[in-house]
Amino acid sequence: MSGSSFGTILKCTTWGESHGPALGVVIDGMPAGISLTKEHIQPYLNRRKPGANPYATPRKEDDEVEILSGVFEGKTTGTPISIMIRNTSQRSGDYSEISQYYRPGHADFGFDAKYGFRDYRGGGRSSGRETVARVAAGAVAMQLLSELGIEVHAYTRAIGDVSLYDNITYKDISIEESLNSPTGFPIQSVGLKAEKYLQECMKNLDSCGGVIECFATGVPAGIGEPVFDKLDANLGKAIFSIGAVKAVEIGDGIQVTSMKGSENNDSFTIENDTITTATNHCGGILGGISTGNDIVLRAHFKPTPSIFKEQETVNRLKEPITIQIKGRHDPIIVPRAVVVVECMTAFTIADMLLQNMSANINNIKKVYDK
Amino acid sequence: MSGSSFGTILKCTTWGESHGPALGVVIDGMPAGISLTKEHIQPYLNRRKPGANPYATPRKEDDEVEILSGVFEGKTTGTPISIMIRNTSQRSGDYSEISQYYRPGHADFGFDAKYGFRDYRGGGRSSGRETVARVAAGAVAMQLLSELGIEVHAYTRAIGDVSLYDNITYKDISIEESLNSPTGFPIQSVGLKAEKYLQECMKNLDSCGGVIECFATGVPAGIGEPVFDKLDANLGKAIFSIGAVKAVEIGDGIQVTSMKGSENNDSFTIENDTITTATNHCGGILGGISTGNDIVLRAHFKPTPSIFKEQETVNRLKEPITIQIKGRHDPIIVPRAVVVVECMTAFTIADMLLQNMSANINNIKKVYDK
Amino acid sequence: MSGSSFGTILKCTTWGESHGPALGVVIDGMPAGISLTKEHIQPYLNRRKPGANPYATPRKEDDEVEILSGVFEGKTTGTPISIMIRNTSQRSGDYSEISQYYRPGHADFGFDAKYGFRDYRGGGRSSGRETVARVAAGAVAMQLLSELGIEVHAYTRAIGDVSLYDNITYKDISIEESLNSPTGFPIQSVGLKAEKYLQECMKNLDSCGGVIECFATGVPAGIGEPVFDKLDANLGKAIFSIGAVKAVEIGDGIQVTSMKGSENNDSFTIENDTITTATNHCGGILGGISTGNDIVLRAHFKPTPSIFKEQETVNRLKEPITIQIKGRHDPIIVPRAVVVVECMTAFTIADMLLQNMSANINNIKKVYDK
Amino acid sequence: MSGSSFGTILKCTTWGESHGPALGVVIDGMPAGISLTKEHIQPYLNRRKPGANPYATPRKEDDEVEILSGVFEGKTTGTPISIMIRNTSQRSGDYSEISQYYRPGHADFGFDAKYGFRDYRGGGRSSGRETVARVAAGAVAMQLLSELGIEVHAYTRAIGDVSLYDNITYKDISIEESLNSPTGFPIQSVGLKAEKYLQECMKNLDSCGGVIECFATGVPAGIGEPVFDKLDANLGKAIFSIGAVKAVEIGDGIQVTSMKGSENNDSFTIENDTITTATNHCGGILGGISTGNDIVLRAHFKPTPSIFKEQETVNRLKEPITIQIKGRHDPIIVPRAVVVVECMTAFTIADMLLQNMSANINNIKKVYDK
Repeated sequence: MSGSSFGTILKCTTWGESHGPALGVVIDGMPAGISLTKEHIQPYLNRRKPGANPYATPRKEDDEVEILSGVFEGKTTGTPISIMIRNTSQRSGDYSEISQYYRPGHADFGFDAKYGFRDYRGGGRSSGRETVARVAAGAVAMQLLSELGIEVHAYTRAIGDVSLYDNITYKDISIEESLNSPTGFPIQSVGLKAEKYLQECMKNLDSCGGVIECFATGVPAGIGEPVFDKLDANLGKAIFSIGAVKAVEIGDGIQVTSMKGSENNDSFTIENDTITTATNHCGGILGGISTGNDIVLRAHFKPTPSIFKEQETVNRLKEPITIQIKGRHDPIIVPRAVVVVECMTAFTIADMLLQNMSANINNIKKVYDK
Repeated sequence: MSGSSFGTILKCTTWGESHGPALGVVIDGMPAGISLTKEHIQPYLNRRKPGANPYATPRKEDDEVEILSGVFEGKTTGTPISIMIRNTSQRSGDYSEISQYYRPGHADFGFDAKYGFRDYRGGGRSSGRETVARVAAGAVAMQLLSELGIEVHAYTRAIGDVSLYDNITYKDISIEESLNSPTGFPIQSVGLKAEKYLQECMKNLDSCGGVIECFATGVPAGIGEPVFDKLDANLGKAIFSIGAVKAVEIGDGIQVTSMKGSENNDSFTIENDTITTATNHCGGILGGISTGNDIVLRAHFKPTPSIFKEQETVNRLKEPITIQIKGRHDPIIVPRAVVVVECMTAFTIADMLLQNMSANINNIKKVYDK
Repeated sequence: MSGSSFGTILKCTTWGESHGPALGVVIDGMPAGISLTKEHIQPYLNRRKPGANPYATPRKEDDEVEILSGVFEGKTTGTPISIMIRNTSQRSGDYSEISQYYRPGHADFGFDAKYGFRDYRGGGRSSGRETVARVAAGAVAMQLLSELGIEVHAYTRAIGDVSLYDNITYKDISIEESLNSPTGFPIQSVGLKAEKYLQECMKNLDSCGGVIECFATGVPAGIGEPVFDKLDANLGKAIFSIGAVKAVEIGDGIQVTSMKGSENNDSFTIENDTITTATNHCGGILGGISTGNDIVLRAHFKPTPSIFKEQETVNRLKEPITIQIKGRHDPIIVPRAVVVVECMTAFTIADMLLQNMSANINNIKKVYDK
Repeated sequence: MSGSSFGTILKCTTWGESHGPALGVVIDGMPAGISLTKEHIQPYLNRRKPGANPYATPRKEDDEVEILSGVFEGKTTGTPISIMIRNTSQRSGDYSEISQYYRPGHADFGFDAKYGFRDYRGGGRSSGRETVARVAAGAVAMQLLSELGIEVHAYTRAIGDVSLYDNITYKDISIEESLNSPTGFPIQSVGLKAEKYLQECMKNLDSCGGVIECFATGVPAGIGEPVFDKLDANLGKAIFSIGAVKAVEIGDGIQVTSMKGSENNDSFTIENDTITTATNHCGGILGGISTGNDIVLRAHFKPTPSIFKEQETVNRLKEPITIQIKGRHDPIIVPRAVVVVECMTAFTIADMLLQNMSANINNIKKVYDK
């Protein structure tokens, strides 16, 4: 089967390995007539670029975007947009050893069980580097969303034990602040605490996990398809498809378990002559369909599996061995994953906006001037 | 667009409204030669049937399965399996009032925003009754899984504040016990506490949420497609597509956030000459691919939105109103949703097992005897 | 895999065997707000109903439509439309013999090779009776098309050696006339010749083939997706998916082979202030995209494979045998297939109309009032 | 929507414009462990390369393949294979004029109607140059087919009025001969007649059409999914998706119209202890499923629409104008399209082979060693 495509009307197909010549994505179904240049995409890639701060792998990659098709005179043409990002910093020599054993917490064993062998250089296709292509796809989707006044942002809520207080929501923070922080926290004092926590982790040759929150504003009511292609179902898939995510919450998420119906229900109300909900426990989605209020979700990331501590594992000959991983690895996935969560959310919403277009005959008559 | 299909190789398409003549599902892609009769499906439907216990709506439905195609002489033929369940207990009269306003916590407003109007009788397509079709589909998938020695089970872990202790895992409990419990708890004493909690809820005209855990044993290593169709991504979508789910966890889920890499990584080891992991924090999935260890996930359900307390909302004329919902509603979704989680998990794993078949040329040569 | 679904945005999934309790179709993605009742569908089914004329199997089926979901107060709701047609005239006794051998021209052997066994009663899933579900799906699509002023019609052009003159086009004939003809010819004198030809065929215990032409008027320019989902590619698939079709032509079809570019090119011109083509050799499609002129295609049907003459074949034990087919079989497929071609064309165009909606940002802004 | 992907399990997504920096394809779902290098693909691309003979555009392109992912140490890894072919011979200056009018026989007007504007340089996405990516995809599929002993070949049957005799089948000709011919004819004397015909065409500033036949040997019985994803339905779509194809025939194609059932039916017989058909009127496909006999199809191509004669058309301002096309254009599409037909056929068969793998429980047990 083929697992490298995402989306239905707006669809992306990614390709590339950590140590091949390049990675890339083909985005098909992007409407024509939308401004798109390298400059719209590069800033998103720069946010996930390695080597940008002390808590990221020192591997240096330019991650420079090349748009190879689908754009003419600065506008999308409606045909597939092919984007390529070259790998410039592979060191294959680093990986000869790991070809023979299975790193704990990694997909090495799964790939061998599935395919019979694997491109072991830097994780090959299962490398975190794969996300570079998703980010490019999400950046393109953002251009579509911006035409409709929709914004999507994400930021760090927790790293290890260091977390924002529960009563601080995305409405209380500054996204600018989070963009300037090496940890992605939107509040500097918390970010500094997190940096200390990370330094301690690194000293112990260990790694840690964290939480990212993402929100989207301006999404009209009615987006999402009932039953299986619910907006939250597709967002759930989008976020779980990011390596290292082990839990996803929509709106109040796991807290709803201990809430009463009377506490959790969001009353409908009128604001600026528009129906919306007075509170937003549901994260902007009811029955899989957007309410018109902000979409809110959270992704929980596991600690980086590549740690420098000694670990027990087995090799391909089924012998137990002790390993010590070398190379260049982030002690925490979260800061560089913020933009990945943001981009997957944006891509999903854009696709669902297009899916909704044919929901009723009035929409169709508008398009065909009947 | 069309949101009523799920799966890629094994694919189901559900249909039907709460108050139409029937609901049903067409399952396409089920391999030929597998035993299938009504008797394989009916027990699953009976588990979600309303009216079975004091914490479920008193609406009585027989939920009797009719297999209309795809089975010949007790075996699947490889062609679509059409299953129908008639509605026998609709009372349309109950719903005339709610056609004019938007119930908090429900998809009413979303449907109107999307489609321009809605079948308001009993929630129409967005009724929990829709899950009857998913359960039938999952029961069919179970027959495929059982041919490969795979089992899937789910049970209640929490209702409101009443929860199993964290250190009790699915390995410590009896599924039989949970099947006999009106709340789905696998430990009687906890179940009784939950019943008291529920009675208190009902007395207060309120509702509550809860947590379901699901596990699958016998899933071979190598299942799941890298990048977007990761096993956990598709499970995430499957579970989030169940109405009222607001969070999904795989393996240790949200706990990984505060774990160190050295704590969270599962060492590989040899058991019965097979590679597996010594612990299973990852819930049987690494990099989106099964490890051969048990698959474990948890679904967090919000409280039933239909409560009998007075609530604020607006009507279609955008006027604020106060409503009091009548009719027949479960004070808790969880007990009847246990089998729904189980069935969606089974269906997803079955589909991914089929997707994996063409992963390598050796598999293909086995099938084509080359 | 699953081969019983067709369409992308407007999608149908059919089910059912010739000798099961019923056949049916689930149509997902039909926009909300379109009039739909049994009365819109039944006339199409009546046109393919067996027993209606001397050149069709005498098997009697009422083919009565039941709409089970997706319609509320006479309008589509945007949710799946489930339609069922019960089988009322199965005689399983007829088929016991053919379970053991492979009928020439039929899929019997293919089914056994694929699935290991088959539902041999009346062809099971591969029976021409399967088309009843496609016709129901197409009839629903017609309701969408009629909202946009699009009409689709088909008629018989040839039966065996009896054919309309090449210079008679769909513009020269009366569809009413063809609907009243037992052979589907739009010109009575030709129809009568065809009837004689058919009677001769039947006397010889033989069968014959024929040609159906289909045309669609009112299709706006711009429909069809470049590269793989060209309008003609999807129409080609739609028509070839009808059993017994062995060739499909678009516009001038095979004649283009011997035309010069200067003869075959259709000049663009202005008509009623709209750009269109002065001639229509291309059948309304250039580069896979509609030109705004009429869509024209032709389907070539092979003779009914079930003939009453003696035939050579082999049985499941790989022994050569001589067989003589019994039962009730049409000596010609074409007259009853006219409505099938029409309905598959309609369904494809409807789906492609919806696919085109998101082609450019202007369409999207119209729908979302931006 | 997105129309640049083809296939279900084996899936390709193409991208690129005639005058962009490159064209390419991403092939997802290719099984792991199959030999693949540039050398397997380049020969196919060389066969469609422009400038190779006097009847092709003199535009020179190296069409050199770059494999960017999905291959490791000479074997496919199971992950997406990204292939890029750079454009080296664009001359954008040639196309400034045609941006303002609609060339007869081309998709120019359709693109404008659909997208609001177009990349007019050399046809942009609708250029025949797009097929370079399909050929690369097909060449990859050929590697899978060759592992199973399946071969696919195509050759020219007709150019304008010059045609092979009907009684000469693919069994009577030498593919080697056709590969060495500038017209693709497998019989030299006929090829020479065709060359004269073409020279006459060119002298008259005109173009002509032709017919390509394709056949596949070694395809096992049972391939193809009943109902909509019939093998012939998907082949029909594959071939109609090639620009300029106006008719497709399977087996005896349009001739079946005037055949009797007793003539057209292929008797089953035993050969080498295997069931097959004694004749092959059906082209190796019955009821949409392969019989085990050779697959045979024919594609009818229209004349190249770009002719150098004066033509009537309209411009974007809806004014009638007279144009004379300049530039570099093939007077006939067929010779360079032979390999395109071959590759689309190969890709479709490969995909359907993978789709068939899960048809029955025995196949599944073989793969999972149960």
